Amino acid sequence: MAFNPNDLAAVSLHRQQFSVLKGKQYFNYGGQGPMADSAIAALSQAQQNIQTEGPFSSRAYEWVKAQGTQVRGAIAQALGTTPEAITLTENVTVGCNIPLWGLPWQSGDHILMGDCEHPGVVAAVAELSRRYELDVSTCALADTRNEISADKGANKGPVALIQQNLRPNTRLVIISHILWNTGQVLPMKEIVSVCHRNAPHTRVLVDAAQSAGSLPLDQSGWRLPETKVDYYAFTGHKWWCGPAGIGALYVRPEVLAETAPTFIGWRGIEMDDAGNPTGWKPDGQRFEVATSDYPLWSALQQAMKVQAEWGTSGQRYERICRLSERLWEGLRAIPKVTCLLTAAPPPSGLVSFQLIGDRAQPSPDLHNALVQQLEAQQIYVRTLLSPHCVRACVHYLTLESEVDALVEKVRAFV
Amino acid sequence: MAFNPNDLAAVSLHRQQFSVLKGKQYFNYGGQGPMADSAIAALSQAQQNIQTEGPFSSRAYEWVKAQGTQVRGAIAQALGTTPEAITLTENVTVGCNIPLWGLPWQSGDHILMGDCEHPGVVAAVAELSRRYELDVSTCALADTRNEISADKGANKGPVALIQQNLRPNTRLVIISHILWNTGQVLPMKEIVSVCHRNAPHTRVLVDAAQSAGSLPLDQSGWRLPETKVDYYAFTGHKWWCGPAGIGALYVRPEVLAETAPTFIGWRGIEMDDAGNPTGWKPDGQRFEVATSDYPLWSALQQAMKVQAEWGTSGQRYERICRLSERLWEGLRAIPKVTCLLTAAPPPSGLVSFQLIGDRAQPSPDLHNALVQQLEAQQIYVRTLLSPHCVRACVHYLTLESEVDALVEKVRAFV
Repeated sequence: MAFNPNDLAAVSLHRQQFSVLKGKQYFNYGGQGPMADSAIAALSQAQQNIQTEGPFSSRAYEWVKAQGTQVRGAIAQALGTTPEAITLTENVTVGCNIPLWGLPWQSGDHILMGDCEHPGVVAAVAELSRRYELDVSTCALADTRNEISADKGANKGPVALIQQNLRPNTRLVIISHILWNTGQVLPMKEIVSVCHRNAPHTRVLVDAAQSAGSLPLDQSGWRLPETKVDYYAFTGHKWWCGPAGIGALYVRPEVLAETAPTFIGWRGIEMDDAGNPTGWKPDGQRFEVATSDYPLWSALQQAMKVQAEWGTSGQRYERICRLSERLWEGLRAIPKVTCLLTAAPPPSGLVSFQLIGDRAQPSPDLHNALVQQLEAQQIYVRTLLSPHCVRACVHYLTLESEVDALVEKVRAFV
Repeated sequence: MAFNPNDLAAVSLHRQQFSVLKGKQYFNYGGQGPMADSAIAALSQAQQNIQTEGPFSSRAYEWVKAQGTQVRGAIAQALGTTPEAITLTENVTVGCNIPLWGLPWQSGDHILMGDCEHPGVVAAVAELSRRYELDVSTCALADTRNEISADKGANKGPVALIQQNLRPNTRLVIISHILWNTGQVLPMKEIVSVCHRNAPHTRVLVDAAQSAGSLPLDQSGWRLPETKVDYYAFTGHKWWCGPAGIGALYVRPEVLAETAPTFIGWRGIEMDDAGNPTGWKPDGQRFEVATSDYPLWSALQQAMKVQAEWGTSGQRYERICRLSERLWEGLRAIPKVTCLLTAAPPPSGLVSFQLIGDRAQPSPDLHNALVQQLEAQQIYVRTLLSPHCVRACVHYLTLESEVDALVEKVRAFV
C-alpha cells in the first residue's frame, strides 16, 4: 500500500512519539522544533554512555568519533551529498560565519545580500566589511514575494533581481533558501547559476535555517551538489526537531581549498607525532574547532530517524505545503487579517500574517497581544519585526485540526 | 568545627554523588572531569523543561535567559570578577580564538607564545599570522620547569624568559596558566605585569584549560581583576566536572572596546524595533553568537554547586596539591620512571612522567602500552605527545588509595 501523506490516523500515531506536543498547539517549528521522546532519551543515553566509558578514555573517544561519522553521514544523505562536504557547527550562524571570514577578501570586493537575512548575519557582514573595506549592497527580495509565475514555486522575480544587482567584483551573494519572514522559497539553483555565470569568483552562501529538514533536499533537482550552491548553513533544532546546539555547514568541494578556517582548534587540524600542526583536515572537519556537547550528535541522528519513519522527504514536504495552504486560506478569509503572501500560499511551512488595526495599518500591538494571548492557552506562534507580523509554522507533524483551531482563535481575536 | 580538606571520610561521602566514578580509578581530570549525578540530572531536567515550556516560547526564553544570568554569575564569582566580563563559549579554544581574531592587527605585529600551548591554539596563531603578516616567536617555558625559587610555586624563571622575549611591537603574549604537559603553574600576575610594562599595546591571553576549577581564582591574589590578565579562556568540563560543550572567556573590561567580535550572531548584538543591528551588547555577551545547547548552562551551575559543597576553592586546591605530591613522590621512587618535574612536586593536579626504555630514553611505546593496559583495568590516564609522556591528574575528588594503587600499578608495569 502506498504511503499516504494525508492519512490523519498515521500522523496522529506518529505524533505519539512527541510527548511534549501533548496539550499544545505548536506553530513555532521555524523557531525550534519539539524533540521526540526517543531523541530526548538519546541525549541522556549518550551522556551517560560517555560518562560511564570515560569520560576521557579511548573507548569514549572511539564511541564519540563513531557518532560523529554517523551524524555527518545522516546529514549528508539528507542533502544528497557526501560526509566530506559537511562541517558540524553549533548553529546556523556559525555556519554562515565560517565562509564569511574564510574567503580571501580584497579591499573593494562586493557582497550582495537579500533584504530578508537574519540580523545576526547582517551584523557579521557589517563587521566583515568594516575590517576588509568591502562594499555591501542589499536587494529587495521581499518585494518579489507576490510575483508568482505559472510554474508553482518557481518564482522568477528573485533571479532577475539578483542578476541585476551583481557586479563584476561581486565576491559573495548571501540569500536564504526559505525567507524566514515571508515563507518564500527562492529558486536556489537558478540564483546560483546566474551568480556563477557573473564572474569566476562569485560565490553563494545560503542561510538554510528554514529549509534543512523541510525541503526535500535529498530528491532529484533539490540535492545540494545539483544546485552547485557553494555554502549552505543550517541547524538541526528547527525542522529536523533535533536538540538546540547542533547545526552544520555544507561546503561545495570545489570551493573548500579557497575557504580558510578562521576559528581553529584541534578538531580541524592534522598533527605530527610530536603534536605539531601540519595542515588542515582534508574535508569539512577542518572548520570544526574543539570539544562540543557530543551527545547532541546522537540525539540529532535519532531525531532524523524518527522523521524518516514518516514517508519520504518529498511526502513530508507535500504535507507541509498542504497544511500551509489550509492555514493560509483560513487566515486570508478573516477580515482584518492579511497574509504576507497574497498571490499564492507559501511553498513552505511558514505562514506570516498581519492584523490590521487603526488607519488600516498592520498593528504591532495587536500582533504582540495575539501571541501573548495564544501562548497563555498553550498555542505557540511568534511575532517577527520586519515586516512586523505574526508567523505560524506548520510541520508535517501538524494536525489539520490544529490549523483549523488556530484560524478560529485568530478570527475570535480580531 | 573547621573543615578539614584531608578528611578522607568526608571525601568518600562527597564522592558518592559521582556514580560514574564507581569501579574506576580516574586520573583524566585534565582531559574531562566526571559529572556528578545531579549535574547529569540537571541536563535532562533543563532539556525537559525547555521542551515542555516551548520549546520556542516566551516562557522557555525567559527561563533560558535566567539560566544564562545565573551561570555567568557563578563563573564570574569563581574568578573573582563580575558577570559583565564573561562570555559564554563552546570550549576553551573558541575562547582563545575570540581575542586572536578580534584584536586590531597591523602587519608586522609580534605575537609571543609559550612552547607548551595547545596545538589548536598554535594552528590558529599560524593562520592568523599568515593572514595579517604577523611575526610569531616562541619561548621555551618548558625548560624553566625545574627552576624553583624558595617561594613555593612562584617560579621566577618564566617571568624573566618572557621579559627577554618581548619586543616593542609585541601585541599579544599567549601562555597557559597551568602548562598542560608539565603541570607548572605560571606566575600569571607577574607575567602580565612585565607584559603591560613592555608597551601600552601589549596584551596577555591565557589558556586556562587546566586552571579554571583547580586554582583558587576567587581568593585574594588569584582573582582575575587583581592579576590584570586581559583574556582568560577556559572550559567547564575539566576541573569543574561540568558537561562538555560549555566554556567561557573573561575579557578585562579595559580591553573590551578594542576587541572586535568576529564570529557574530543575534546573541551579541543590539537591535532596533525593526530588527536592524544597532551595535554590540555592552558586555562580554557581544562575543556570543547564536543558539546553543542551553541545558549545559544549568548543568555547569549544578557541577559548580557540588564542588562548592566541599570546602573553599583554596581547600580544594590544597588537597589537589597534597595528592599530586603523594603521586609524584610515589612515582619518582620507581626505578625507570622519571617525572617531568624533578625539583619539586607539581603545584597543580597534573603529574606527568616518562618510562625509561632502551638506551635510557623515554619510550613512547611503553607509555602507550601502559595507558592501554591501565584502561583495560578501568584505570584512566593518558599520553601526551610533547614531550612524550604519561599524564595522571589528581582532583580533590581523588582518593589517597587511588593514588597509591596507581603507583603500584606503574611499579608493576615497569
